[in-house]
Amino acid sequence: MSEQPTFDPTIIRTKALIISDYSGDLAKLTLVERNLRPLKAHEVLVKVAATPINPSDMMFINGSYGITKPLPAVPGFEGSGTIVSTGDQLYSKVLLGKRVSFATQAPEDDGAWADYVIVAARQCLPLAESLSFEQAASAIVNPVSAWALIDIARQRQAKAVVQTAAASQLGRMLVRLAQREKLTLINIVRREAQVELLQALGAEYVLNSSSPDFAEMLSKLCHEQQANLAFDAVGGELVGQVVSAMPKGSTIMVYGALADSACQIDPRSLIFENKHVTGFWLTDWIGQINPLNFARITKNVQKLLLDELTSTVQGRFKLHEAQNALELYQANMTGGKVLFTP
Amino acid sequence: MSEQPTFDPTIIRTKALIISDYSGDLAKLTLVERNLRPLKAHEVLVKVAATPINPSDMMFINGSYGITKPLPAVPGFEGSGTIVSTGDQLYSKVLLGKRVSFATQAPEDDGAWADYVIVAARQCLPLAESLSFEQAASAIVNPVSAWALIDIARQRQAKAVVQTAAASQLGRMLVRLAQREKLTLINIVRREAQVELLQALGAEYVLNSSSPDFAEMLSKLCHEQQANLAFDAVGGELVGQVVSAMPKGSTIMVYGALADSACQIDPRSLIFENKHVTGFWLTDWIGQINPLNFARITKNVQKLLLDELTSTVQGRFKLHEAQNALELYQANMTGGKVLFTP
Repeated sequence: MSEQPTFDPTIIRTKALIISDYSGDLAKLTLVERNLRPLKAHEVLVKVAATPINPSDMMFINGSYGITKPLPAVPGFEGSGTIVSTGDQLYSKVLLGKRVSFATQAPEDDGAWADYVIVAARQCLPLAESLSFEQAASAIVNPVSAWALIDIARQRQAKAVVQTAAASQLGRMLVRLAQREKLTLINIVRREAQVELLQALGAEYVLNSSSPDFAEMLSKLCHEQQANLAFDAVGGELVGQVVSAMPKGSTIMVYGALADSACQIDPRSLIFENKHVTGFWLTDWIGQINPLNFARITKNVQKLLLDELTSTVQGRFKLHEAQNALELYQANMTGGKVLFTP
Repeated sequence: MSEQPTFDPTIIRTKALIISDYSGDLAKLTLVERNLRPLKAHEVLVKVAATPINPSDMMFINGSYGITKPLPAVPGFEGSGTIVSTGDQLYSKVLLGKRVSFATQAPEDDGAWADYVIVAARQCLPLAESLSFEQAASAIVNPVSAWALIDIARQRQAKAVVQTAAASQLGRMLVRLAQREKLTLINIVRREAQVELLQALGAEYVLNSSSPDFAEMLSKLCHEQQANLAFDAVGGELVGQVVSAMPKGSTIMVYGALADSACQIDPRSLIFENKHVTGFWLTDWIGQINPLNFARITKNVQKLLLDELTSTVQGRFKLHEAQNALELYQANMTGGKVLFTP
């Protein structure tokens, strides 16, 4: 307990990026200095090493995410770092000094875009030595989502699966996991460079939604491969195109809204072709699985982080460089992770 | 068998309305005279007394229905009449001379907009004497759909159900069946006159989608009444409004496309609120229930036809007056059934 006074969150000055409204105006993201509250028994204090910008952060900032927090709020749903102080529970205490990945989604807690963050001990995943803080920073949101989606495909005994935004970090993880599982994946991207990127990863079926014959090719492929499940991260018209292309009885699960527009679905697909449109949210998925099972999954995911679930990093920024970080992120969302490294 | 020669379909000249393409151009609906093919063992020949114009006929004519038939094709999915000739199977033969309701959906068969039509004997429902041909003409599509939807609500143990196009014939049947089942129904219409019409039927909750506070009222009511199931016949933006208004975990079943436009659904409703969008098609529903069960249902439905499942009739037309009939139908789709009475 001797190091506790050094890292008492109520005494040390910490830095965090905050939003004061949900306008979505990124220019309003402000760096503040402050003290934190005392730790509760089940909590730990993490000195943040790296924390990524994810699509869900963009939704959080404009108020369209599934969780809104009291304002002012600190964005950021995951990161990596070292535990420098803990609450009194045993499971908190054993983590002291450990390198961890962490998630922070609780509506009452601050997010990860800070130099220090308080999180629940059970939201921390101790890291293997071989794993860098940079890889570990994005160990949860994308990798566990990719794992969960593949698990859903397996449980539904899908013969083949369609995915949109296939060149995204998560999309590429799905490509690699699907190869490992010998699951046929039909990948949709929107630029020719992304077609090449996925082919270089070994993806067999890659369609460019900007091609004039896209709808026809997609329909042909979906029927040939009997793709009766799709994962969509885009929304808008693309959802309807995928739904129309799939065989009767198919399901599309929407897990992202990159196009920021309503899913447009032909009612005849629903009425006459028995198609289903539903959603996927990692938070709900985790909430409904057995906690022991979740521990097993995160362990498996960690094993894969150096291989199938690797993220690439395109930029590292200090917290005071937030505007530059967000500009790079928005300019090239498939170029690799943009990290804050406080 | 003595009357068979009189009504041999290959000898008598019959009249039918036909389409020669799926352009949806109603002006191209043509009255033709022709002989029919010989009856197969399981078939009967119906002298049509009355056959309605349904929304599904409009979809069939423009090629957007779930079934397309080889051209030229006769529209019309149901009707009433007298069986004047039969095939050789026992169940066909016992129907000779009977007054019946009938359905005709098989892709290889002609529709009901004719003075004589060949249908499968098992698609015929002998009529109680008290039931007029006019009531019996619309005994299947709307009444069995209404019954099926209420059955779905019951099976899902829905506390309350939302329905759009509530002033339609089918909508009004749902209002009456829901009262009988003590199921709370939240009715959506788009004109003030329809609000009054439904209130006169005893509907407790009726909202006008043209009101400026519609979205807010609908959301309030859906949450108060825990309406976690909706039936939609409209499509377009209204689907998204209903989905957004319902509590988490809700389902909307689309069974019609009156707005003839894509359902627009906020991806956040799907991702963060675990909402589901699916469809209902009577043909599929009938296909998946036990035939004995279906016989029981149609019998029950027939009992209700004079009361909860009554259709009102606003116009009767001969086959050569098809243009007038369709004009009246399109001008006032909630004013009552428009029938052909060959």
